[in-house]
Amino acid sequence: MQFFLRCRKMSDMIRVSLRPPPLKKSAPKAQFSSATTQREGGVSMVQGASRGIGLEFVRQLLEKNNKGIVVATCRNPSGATGLLELQEKYEDRLNILPLDVIDESTIEAATTSITTNYGYLNLLINTSGVLSIPKVLHPETTLSKLEKSSLMLTYEINAVGPVLVVKHMLPLLRAGGGSGTDREFAVVANLSARVGSIGDNRLGGWHSYRASKTALNQLTKNISVELARRKDRIISILLHPGTVDTDLSKPFQKNVPPGKLFTREFSVEKLLSIINNAKGCDNGKFYAWDGQEIPW
Amino acid sequence: MQFFLRCRKMSDMIRVSLRPPPLKKSAPKAQFSSATTQREGGVSMVQGASRGIGLEFVRQLLEKNNKGIVVATCRNPSGATGLLELQEKYEDRLNILPLDVIDESTIEAATTSITTNYGYLNLLINTSGVLSIPKVLHPETTLSKLEKSSLMLTYEINAVGPVLVVKHMLPLLRAGGGSGTDREFAVVANLSARVGSIGDNRLGGWHSYRASKTALNQLTKNISVELARRKDRIISILLHPGTVDTDLSKPFQKNVPPGKLFTREFSVEKLLSIINNAKGCDNGKFYAWDGQEIPW
Repeated sequence: MQFFLRCRKMSDMIRVSLRPPPLKKSAPKAQFSSATTQREGGVSMVQGASRGIGLEFVRQLLEKNNKGIVVATCRNPSGATGLLELQEKYEDRLNILPLDVIDESTIEAATTSITTNYGYLNLLINTSGVLSIPKVLHPETTLSKLEKSSLMLTYEINAVGPVLVVKHMLPLLRAGGGSGTDREFAVVANLSARVGSIGDNRLGGWHSYRASKTALNQLTKNISVELARRKDRIISILLHPGTVDTDLSKPFQKNVPPGKLFTREFSVEKLLSIINNAKGCDNGKFYAWDGQEIPW
Repeated sequence: MQFFLRCRKMSDMIRVSLRPPPLKKSAPKAQFSSATTQREGGVSMVQGASRGIGLEFVRQLLEKNNKGIVVATCRNPSGATGLLELQEKYEDRLNILPLDVIDESTIEAATTSITTNYGYLNLLINTSGVLSIPKVLHPETTLSKLEKSSLMLTYEINAVGPVLVVKHMLPLLRAGGGSGTDREFAVVANLSARVGSIGDNRLGGWHSYRASKTALNQLTKNISVELARRKDRIISILLHPGTVDTDLSKPFQKNVPPGKLFTREFSVEKLLSIINNAKGCDNGKFYAWDGQEIPW
């Protein structure tokens, strides 16, 4: 219901009217062979799946229906204990592939593997991201602490990496058959963060992280403009998970007000609800976990 | 008048009310020695000054008053014919320094030189930026043409470079004595572009350039939040010059509607008017050449 209302908001209707003609509801062109006819439950990919929010996405995608395939990627599959535990339970539905967003050849290899094994994807969720690395990357508290190396590394991992994944996976994306949903659109969901909002920036600091997420927002919006011109019912959206109890937020959790630190289960359940109910009018939008749009 | 009205807009008043206490009108602490007592006309710096909009800023800053010092930086002063011509006319008021935004040591050297010679700056304008480089950097028309190297290089030059210049020059910035103005604030003006707006992105394309300018917007906003907490009357703003007849826009001018391609003289006159009339409530804003605010 929340999504029904959201898609009918006047601001959305105005936005849609300024765009190319509305996306048709006809089926997309079948550009894949009969060998890749879509299976019930679909094929979903979660990039950055070894822990935290990514791992929880994989778990819920597997648990919430009993048919879909989940491709989980991470830098080092053999050390991804959480994924390996899930694989024991979902042996034939979970496919773990190596992928490091800063090494484009690994993205290409994963693309080839998915093309060969399934021929398509219905959902792509990019969750990888970095905020701090002990002795390497320290979120800045003032401009005077800004380091070029931090700006460049954070941009490479948080903005460039996910968008390169989208670049390579986009030809595989097909509408329909989303895992555990009757969603009519294929979805690219990039995990952003409220601190990437410029309009909502009242605290400052975290220059490298903020700039990288803001750039990811622009790049994802840019992709959505390209997708809106096509007729194959693929959309790209941005998601803010809230402040979630993960390794990424751990060093900063003491500043989180009581009740504002979400469990991974709670946040991912909310985000999956947004993804699985996504419609054409959500294309290019930036949503918080509760479905509220975040200003750019 | 335009600025008087702009600063009194309700939206601005609300924003100001959510911020730390308003900036005091008392003089900033004198943190520099008597040897650096401010001179009439002030000291302005234009980074990226060898041609295009940067060179025109230098010319107008020199011409529009007869006292201020202008520090013009560029990668290769000996090849900057436009600046060298100006130096013949304004020998004692124009100081040309080498600075390449991708080499932080040159920023540090320029900082040392300005510290030694003047001890302060009243205005810092960052104009350097890249959109295309023949055989190296091609503005993308679709996601499929995205190259990691283009994203990284454009970010380094357009977002990281200018912000590192601000980082190093910020301790030199002093309110008052702006060149050719009785402006009460020191100004950091970063040249952005309307295509860096996410909210205004209706055409897509130019992924690397858009993302870099969007990130510059966030970084400049971040700096403005830090400046708003201080009491020394320094603000940072973002400027969109319009589409100006420069080397940067030359390969793309055929798509510009008649009357929308500005001369450098016209655009810089408009931008200097914004800078010289800037007030505290302009801090962190993104203005087009005509004084209109651009959405993030």
